Amino acid sequence: MSDRSKRMATAFASASVGNVAVGFDILGFAMEAPGDRVSVEVLDEPQVEISEISGVVTDLPMAATDNTATVGLLEMIDDLKLDFGFRVAIEKGIPLGSGMGGSAASAVASVVAANELLDQELSRNQCLRYALIGESAATGDLHADNVTPCLFGGLTLTRSIEPVEVLRIPVPDEIRCVLAYPNRRVDTRRAREVVPDELPVSDFVAQSANLASFITGCHRGDLELIGRSLKDVLIEPHRASLIPGFYEVCEAARAAGALGSSISGAGPTIFAWVTAGDLEAVASAMHGAFAEAGSEATIWSGAIGEKGARIIDEGS
Amino acid sequence: MSDRSKRMATAFASASVGNVAVGFDILGFAMEAPGDRVSVEVLDEPQVEISEISGVVTDLPMAATDNTATVGLLEMIDDLKLDFGFRVAIEKGIPLGSGMGGSAASAVASVVAANELLDQELSRNQCLRYALIGESAATGDLHADNVTPCLFGGLTLTRSIEPVEVLRIPVPDEIRCVLAYPNRRVDTRRAREVVPDELPVSDFVAQSANLASFITGCHRGDLELIGRSLKDVLIEPHRASLIPGFYEVCEAARAAGALGSSISGAGPTIFAWVTAGDLEAVASAMHGAFAEAGSEATIWSGAIGEKGARIIDEGS
Repeated sequence: MSDRSKRMATAFASASVGNVAVGFDILGFAMEAPGDRVSVEVLDEPQVEISEISGVVTDLPMAATDNTATVGLLEMIDDLKLDFGFRVAIEKGIPLGSGMGGSAASAVASVVAANELLDQELSRNQCLRYALIGESAATGDLHADNVTPCLFGGLTLTRSIEPVEVLRIPVPDEIRCVLAYPNRRVDTRRAREVVPDELPVSDFVAQSANLASFITGCHRGDLELIGRSLKDVLIEPHRASLIPGFYEVCEAARAAGALGSSISGAGPTIFAWVTAGDLEAVASAMHGAFAEAGSEATIWSGAIGEKGARIIDEGS
Repeated sequence: MSDRSKRMATAFASASVGNVAVGFDILGFAMEAPGDRVSVEVLDEPQVEISEISGVVTDLPMAATDNTATVGLLEMIDDLKLDFGFRVAIEKGIPLGSGMGGSAASAVASVVAANELLDQELSRNQCLRYALIGESAATGDLHADNVTPCLFGGLTLTRSIEPVEVLRIPVPDEIRCVLAYPNRRVDTRRAREVVPDELPVSDFVAQSANLASFITGCHRGDLELIGRSLKDVLIEPHRASLIPGFYEVCEAARAAGALGSSISGAGPTIFAWVTAGDLEAVASAMHGAFAEAGSEATIWSGAIGEKGARIIDEGS
């Protein structure tokens, strides 16, 4: 609940995987870790300041008009005609340009924390709107496939941004995820540029078949169907060359038991879906394959983040 | 069960709607009516003859190598090294070039009937293969979005043709369908030609969102979600001009309560999904809108055909 007497709140928002192989710009899922923490403190003037940026990324804009964590708050102050403002401290756990939704996580965490300080709590969809505006400071456009799962948790399908319509797609309990980040950046705009404006209808048909089958597999809890369907024939071929060792890492993941793998968002992180029993073997295989391709990868592995962004205790 | 002592069998296969707005080349559903009946009689020589073509279409090839009802049977004789053949009588209930899967229905009915006369019954997927080969006599290519629902019944998703993988998607019990056929032909090849080889990625993203939402709506039994999602933004705009009155008929259907509507297969038939209570009003509205556009439409309305193609008693 919102509590105006409260002067400060801290929120956690996790990494997320956009596109999910078959759902370019529409599907995304949240991880449990890593994530960003944003602490927001009430300022007496209706303005926004960044007091500190710490963690794994520190070379981010300190101007509130340029940072994904604060652009949404400026819009919120304006929209709601607030007579107070926010001082924001950002602790980054998600590497920049990794394809794990770091911009989205900061945007979401700051909105969730600020929401806690409002007289009247915003709806989830209102929070989504401000977080989307915040993230657009990084991407230059409204894309919901990271912000949505980051905020709501789980696997989400964004049917529409204006008006906002987000559907939660069930994920079988057995599913775990490995993220392998090769410690190099991909510029999101560059990753968009390598995708042609137009693509063959025949590729669309094949991708659509996999998308519809993947969604069906999730609803049925059919792991084999999910595995057969988790294949990107549309976008991945254009982006794979931006990631040295891409095909080798995916092949190593499959060989070690992964259901499927693809580029996380715009890359260069590669995600794999895997059942719990194969989690360690797949994580190790992906690390090894990246090493052979010359990249020292950082690996995260764990469950899908079902809870979404949330307020955390100061001490946690 | 197969029964070699049997010398004759008759099968019914219904009309079907391919594409289903959001699933170009991959989704299709069967109707209960109209449909084709094919009677197949054992010949002592391993050859195929057409004895009769009757019903609403009679100007079809009498040569077994050219007719969709017999091309699959020729393949079957060859494949299985049969020492006997088939004499085929076709009773067409589905108008030619209507977009209601008439070629598929004849191909499916003949294979289902012939299967009844074999020593060893074929699997459903084997039947599908011969029916696909039969239908290719009309379309020049393997397309499964009519043959699959026609054979299996219900709403089907064809994930892959080679190897065959077909998924049944649940349809809520309340759903009914109206087919409005404006009594003019569209050449399927021409309808394919008007679709460009490449299409904008942005349109594909929008179509994918609707496809994934439609599949989710079917699994959830969420009629409103199905209605919001049953919209073709990718293919329909290119084909609508082939159907005089297209937008007016769809608008009339929506206004009368239809959940959604689009082109049935390659057209010119328009299908609408509707709940049982609105069935008559929607059927009447679509007929009226076609009449205003100068077409005297034939209307069929009823439930989704859940049973698929089947052997029928001689007398029925």
